[in-house]
Amino acid sequence: MTAIKYELIKTCKQTGARLGKIHTPHGSYDTPMFMPVGTLATVKTMSPEELKEIGSGVILSNTYHLWLRPGHEIVREAGGLHQFMNWDQAILTDSGGFQVFSLSDFRKIEEEGVHFRNHLNGDKLFLSPEKSMEIQNALGSDIMMAFDECPPFPATHEYMKKSVERTSRWAERCLKSHNRPSDQGLFGIVQGGEYEDLRRLSAADLTSLDFPGYAVGGLSVGEPKDVMNRVLEFTTPLLPANKPRYLMGVGSPDSLIDGAIRGIDMFDCVLPTRIARNGTVMTSEGRLVVKNAKYARDFSPLDKNCDCYACRNYTRAYIRHLIKCDETFGIRLTSYHNLYFLLQLMKEVRQAIKEDRLGDFREEFFEQYGFNRPDAKNF
Amino acid sequence: MTAIKYELIKTCKQTGARLGKIHTPHGSYDTPMFMPVGTLATVKTMSPEELKEIGSGVILSNTYHLWLRPGHEIVREAGGLHQFMNWDQAILTDSGGFQVFSLSDFRKIEEEGVHFRNHLNGDKLFLSPEKSMEIQNALGSDIMMAFDECPPFPATHEYMKKSVERTSRWAERCLKSHNRPSDQGLFGIVQGGEYEDLRRLSAADLTSLDFPGYAVGGLSVGEPKDVMNRVLEFTTPLLPANKPRYLMGVGSPDSLIDGAIRGIDMFDCVLPTRIARNGTVMTSEGRLVVKNAKYARDFSPLDKNCDCYACRNYTRAYIRHLIKCDETFGIRLTSYHNLYFLLQLMKEVRQAIKEDRLGDFREEFFEQYGFNRPDAKNF
Ligand SMILES: [Zn+2]
Ligand SMILES: [Zn+2]
Repeated sequence: MTAIKYELIKTCKQTGARLGKIHTPHGSYDTPMFMPVGTLATVKTMSPEELKEIGSGVILSNTYHLWLRPGHEIVREAGGLHQFMNWDQAILTDSGGFQVFSLSDFRKIEEEGVHFRNHLNGDKLFLSPEKSMEIQNALGSDIMMAFDECPPFPATHEYMKKSVERTSRWAERCLKSHNRPSDQGLFGIVQGGEYEDLRRLSAADLTSLDFPGYAVGGLSVGEPKDVMNRVLEFTTPLLPANKPRYLMGVGSPDSLIDGAIRGIDMFDCVLPTRIARNGTVMTSEGRLVVKNAKYARDFSPLDKNCDCYACRNYTRAYIRHLIKCDETFGIRLTSYHNLYFLLQLMKEVRQAIKEDRLGDFREEFFEQYGFNRPDAKNF
Repeated sequence: MTAIKYELIKTCKQTGARLGKIHTPHGSYDTPMFMPVGTLATVKTMSPEELKEIGSGVILSNTYHLWLRPGHEIVREAGGLHQFMNWDQAILTDSGGFQVFSLSDFRKIEEEGVHFRNHLNGDKLFLSPEKSMEIQNALGSDIMMAFDECPPFPATHEYMKKSVERTSRWAERCLKSHNRPSDQGLFGIVQGGEYEDLRRLSAADLTSLDFPGYAVGGLSVGEPKDVMNRVLEFTTPLLPANKPRYLMGVGSPDSLIDGAIRGIDMFDCVLPTRIARNGTVMTSEGRLVVKNAKYARDFSPLDKNCDCYACRNYTRAYIRHLIKCDETFGIRLTSYHNLYFLLQLMKEVRQAIKEDRLGDFREEFFEQYGFNRPDAKNF
């Protein structure tokens, strides 16, 4: 009687990456999958129809931000987040924990929860496992996340151990106060930083609670890429094979591929829409800053190998012009392209898993994108 | 061998308003028609597909703005404005005159043209009839406008007379330097302010040059509404019945109806998209500021009588939330709705002309919208 079911279709013989499908109360989506982020009940600049057009079957939205604006009560009155934002496919909401730890310049962590000041007007607020569940139940997301502590990188082993233990106690309280388990699946979050013993501890605690899915938290918080890969390598084997695994806050093409190779099924990140607003796009030949002067007379598409709406109909010169003039439609086009690019990439990753050649795909992709160059940028 | 042809279908027996059709090298559109404004080669927030969806067969773009950014040479190299912005229907470009007179805080008018400083960085520029034609020929718009002087309201009779005479001389120079007459139709602009004798003089000068269409300029520049109506009443009869008539810079629903009643066929204005950015919409029951707190829990559409994409799928509460959070998608929705509203209004105006009841339609519309109330806002 769980809301979320994971179907493992096959593993890549070359890499161990998993091809799967996740079934939710609002439809199914294939994994590995990248989830566009709709912070405030909208994926910036995009319509729901456009999200469907690019093949997005699941999006993420932020508990903390919706709690503040418009308030979860209003979303509940609207009939839940799906109805509020006119999105009939799957939604995952985070717990608010990450924002409390990253956006507030004041916070006090107690066993009961976290006191902090909100980033909009500095008002004092209190977020706890119970409060996070109350908000996420009001939002009605298909996948909810347990409220966890997100320690910074690096943290001492001593601090991290206490934090992991608290996160486990908080996870139990989340399970207990979650009151819509048949509509909404609650995922646990494995913490422990770069410490293998603590990841083991955290995974053991959380898997004993039998969540319908697990996230690997505390990564993509400033640590080097090889640390992330190493942590994933010893963490995902600790998680049950019949449940989905979600790597939070990751959206650069190399990390998506490397995460899939280490057994991750779901990813999310604001990266594609955030860089789009600055006129930067991801292309099959690497990162391109379309705002640069050299594209003023470039009448080719953003990416000659892309068949998205933006690339089929508009030139770099036009998009550059729009972005230079702060015209919304320019950002619509770069956002559309970047999301399409990542969703296509995941499609290619799934195909490569199906054909047991994700390792080869990684090599080709990294070479063409430029990740193997000494001066490679990280997205 | 003119690029633009006007087809008069019928006049309303009740009001004299004209039902017609304008044929351009990029398709035909029905009149009276409202043209959305795409200042910088984009109708703010909207895609070309959305513009077609709402029934827009013609848009306006600004010569002055495109001259500055990205530069008309780049647009020409792109294959013209249609190709640059991916719009295959009709485009009208203004002459740049209005922006020179309204945006620059320094200008010096000479017989040859106007010296001024651009509004972006203060650089000195010079715009003349020949330069305006050169730019508009590079843009390749279907309808070009002659370069005129736009005196402020009010102006003395003496000043206005000199200005009208200069505008006539400039109109001749425009005709002479226009080098794509078979692709692009050049419209003359009748000036003369509120002075009937000067409108007569201007109309006589311009009609003798046999333009394929005429604009009534120098209105909607701050004069009271009854002055605009009176000027239209004595000006449109001075224009040939077999040519289209364009009232520049008008987009409030009452003025569109009152303009049509006085024989106007085309209108343009930034109003619907500008107010949309502030969270204000036009509805069948009047102006609505959806950003207001009272709509926070209002789960009804912007306009219950509207069947546009925004009204079919989203609530006031959601759109208010987006606009309060500066989310682009909110402005997409209010812009879409406002443009749809005006294009639907023009459709209803055309239907009313067809049925000889535009006077009755005006009464009903004004009553329902609230234009008859003592505290009526002007849009
Ligand atoms: Zn593309
Ligand atoms: Zn509407």
